[in-house]
Amino acid sequence: MDPLFSLSQLERFTYDVFIRMGCSQAHAKLATEVLLNADLRGIDSHGIARLSGYVRLWEAKRINATPYIRIVHESPSTAVVDGDSGLGLVVAPYAMSVAIEKANKAGTGWVAVKNSNHFGIAGHHAMIALSHDMIGISMTNASPLVAPTFSIERLLGTNPIAVAIPAGEQPPFVADFATTTAANGKLEILQRQNKMAPVGWIQKQNGDPSENPHELKDGGALIPLGSDRDHGSHKGFCLGAWVDIFSAVLSGANYGPWVPPFVAFLSPPADPVGEGIGHFVGAMRVDAFRSTDDFKKNMDTWISRFRNAKTVDGQERVIIPGDPEREMSKIRTTEGIPVNPKVVEDLKLLAEKLKLSF
Amino acid sequence: MDPLFSLSQLERFTYDVFIRMGCSQAHAKLATEVLLNADLRGIDSHGIARLSGYVRLWEAKRINATPYIRIVHESPSTAVVDGDSGLGLVVAPYAMSVAIEKANKAGTGWVAVKNSNHFGIAGHHAMIALSHDMIGISMTNASPLVAPTFSIERLLGTNPIAVAIPAGEQPPFVADFATTTAANGKLEILQRQNKMAPVGWIQKQNGDPSENPHELKDGGALIPLGSDRDHGSHKGFCLGAWVDIFSAVLSGANYGPWVPPFVAFLSPPADPVGEGIGHFVGAMRVDAFRSTDDFKKNMDTWISRFRNAKTVDGQERVIIPGDPEREMSKIRTTEGIPVNPKVVEDLKLLAEKLKLSF
Repeated sequence: MDPLFSLSQLERFTYDVFIRMGCSQAHAKLATEVLLNADLRGIDSHGIARLSGYVRLWEAKRINATPYIRIVHESPSTAVVDGDSGLGLVVAPYAMSVAIEKANKAGTGWVAVKNSNHFGIAGHHAMIALSHDMIGISMTNASPLVAPTFSIERLLGTNPIAVAIPAGEQPPFVADFATTTAANGKLEILQRQNKMAPVGWIQKQNGDPSENPHELKDGGALIPLGSDRDHGSHKGFCLGAWVDIFSAVLSGANYGPWVPPFVAFLSPPADPVGEGIGHFVGAMRVDAFRSTDDFKKNMDTWISRFRNAKTVDGQERVIIPGDPEREMSKIRTTEGIPVNPKVVEDLKLLAEKLKLSF
Repeated sequence: MDPLFSLSQLERFTYDVFIRMGCSQAHAKLATEVLLNADLRGIDSHGIARLSGYVRLWEAKRINATPYIRIVHESPSTAVVDGDSGLGLVVAPYAMSVAIEKANKAGTGWVAVKNSNHFGIAGHHAMIALSHDMIGISMTNASPLVAPTFSIERLLGTNPIAVAIPAGEQPPFVADFATTTAANGKLEILQRQNKMAPVGWIQKQNGDPSENPHELKDGGALIPLGSDRDHGSHKGFCLGAWVDIFSAVLSGANYGPWVPPFVAFLSPPADPVGEGIGHFVGAMRVDAFRSTDDFKKNMDTWISRFRNAKTVDGQERVIIPGDPEREMSKIRTTEGIPVNPKVVEDLKLLAEKLKLSF
């Protein structure tokens, strides 16, 4: 069993780390909330486990702790935001606030972001729209780890898509998924457990199938959702490409193999095609389409019908997107957040370096 | 070898059929263009093979040949269109024209459609945006043939998504894919060829894997993109659900298992939750984000880099979404369109019934 930490313990430490980096109090608070929402929701690979990595990127001057985040181009329903190399954790919520403001006036708002960094879990940003009775969308490109169908080159990130849709009595529909067969975090879990990966997740440097979760260190690649051409990996490639183009070609960020790596020990490409990494977020006011009440009633019917569908033997119910993360969040808020011992060790070293206690 | 027909032969006949149904000349022309674009692009399952089915739905009074297609709700960047039970082939292009008009003024336009019917290939509608230097998106829900992960009930259609993105020197990026592992048209091909399907495309009535392409007739179901839970079928389910909700819950159309069947011999559910089937289309003006020239230059770089990526042994190149359909369209425009003998027979019967010649 991994040691448990309360949310407030992790919050205090994370906030202090961002303050040490020189973030404003408001930014430190926001970045802490976004980062730890990943741990609460059970996406451990995107939470506090990444904190020391952010610090190393800041030390390497690739993250700006005091960014001047601003709109550089806009129309009634669109904007491009320049993140000024800030933490994606604060840049993306800003972009989402712009999208929501646009949606309030124009019905929808769509914001492409350049010059940003890793933004935590995509779902967090999409969910900001929910309390405004809006549908939220967010996507981001990421360091290249994925080979397109038929290729042996790593040209795309795991490029997640999140869609958050409000309901009435039912909890919201929140889809948040990497456009690969398996997210990189799933490999990290297998690595820690010394287990093999299912065929269809990873390929070797020469494109052959691999079950080795360490394969990426030897030039291997993750595979787009679908696993192989016969099972639709070209569709997963379409999805990853879509995210890359909306996030980066539309904003002026780096795309494809030019996306800077998330780790400080790897240098960004010497020939950038844009600025930083890119995101794309959107907000659609439900009542720009129909009465919010009618919509929510229909969403309730939709969710109940699907959740209560007949299951295959041995499965209790159909899982509505967002169910597992919401349940996990409830448990971890009361019982605490388990942190992997290797991450604890890493955080202790970070505390020492920054003269904090963990 | 299937017999070849010239595009103009098929156009003449298709146009005459729509006129016999009572469509206006403008609608007959438009519906013909949209329908046959599927045959040109090699998506034979969505082209002239469906013509007699449209006629049967019209005979059953489920398709209205003279619809009053109109906007019933709108904001600066959104609208809901009521298709008045018209052919999706004419309703969707109308919705797309509304989206483009909205995008001209507000930067983007998003239109949810209710009370429509089968709209041909999703890609056609998304591509309408390209000549306006806009990105086009289209999706539609469809008759329920797909079981969500862990379920044995058919609750979703193959719910395709299309995204068309303009480039400069390069041809546009056009993704158009069912959100299932394999589209229903792929099963039809295997049925004709008396071949088995790969494991992961279909499940039996009890949820067990099946390789029988006729399985749907015995209560089986198509599987969301990903094939099984280990390979991300829950992500394919998210995609299909997203399409269903945007197309139908946002517009007030029927969703999930209530979507009316595309075939006249099956009755629509007796307890509809909305009107007809639903689509969702969007247009985003590129210059609402950045200079169109800069965008197109970057798209050219994106496309060249991916197309020329190193391939696995035995594969010539990485396929950019839209490449195969564009190449097919070029070939079939000059050499003619092969039509399956069973479809030819069906069209001859149709001709006889409507006192036309084929």
